[in-house]
Amino acid sequence: MNYDPNCLFCQIVLGKKPCKKVLETENFLVIHNKFPKAPTHVLVLDKKHREKRNTISGKSQSYWDSMFKAVYKTIKYFNLDKTGYKLVNNGAGYNHFEHEHIHVLGGSKQEPGGPT
Amino acid sequence: MNYDPNCLFCQIVLGKKPCKKVLETENFLVIHNKFPKAPTHVLVLDKKHREKRNTISGKSQSYWDSMFKAVYKTIKYFNLDKTGYKLVNNGAGYNHFEHEHIHVLGGSKQEPGGPT
Repeated sequence: MNYDPNCLFCQIVLGKKPCKKVLETENFLVIHNKFPKAPTHVLVLDKKHREKRNTISGKSQSYWDSMFKAVYKTIKYFNLDKTGYKLVNNGAGYNHFEHEHIHVLGGSKQEPGGPT
Repeated sequence: MNYDPNCLFCQIVLGKKPCKKVLETENFLVIHNKFPKAPTHVLVLDKKHREKRNTISGKSQSYWDSMFKAVYKTIKYFNLDKTGYKLVNNGAGYNHFEHEHIHVLGGSKQEPGGPT
């Protein structure tokens, strides 16, 4: 299934719900997080409704290399390769959305949310 | 360069510095974090001295897929696919070590470090 009608991220990808778009690649859409936890806090969203249980377990081939290409494009876009980047990927209950995405945070002198 | 004599993670991989080992794959070593920020807090370390500036920019082919295989093995090892996992990857100054690694956190009811 490419889209889930009950998924907010799918609705955003389809243009049915608003977002603050940063950039877009063939397979990923980068948007500002609605509730930022750092001066820069964006989400790298899969354009398809791939669920975390499938992506983390390696069901989609070359998935993470493809995801990290979009993540790196995002890091460069905000110059975070010079000032610091924090990537967060939550799953199995810590996440709010099953639709796979990675948080990219930066723009602060120290690690957003405190040192890991 | 496979190892950097000045890198603590290289010294751990080579067995010259102690660690609390969790598991090991062909290319990655998983160890307990010395200063845990969650009930489960481990590091998935590259066995080679690959630096973050190179891995994040995509210089090693299939790198992130390979890394995430080891990450998923770690998640399963601690049952975090049932109870929640948080992956953190810091770079460009937010990190303490240039040698590539990912933090895997879990074991708490809510996201360790607060919601991202």
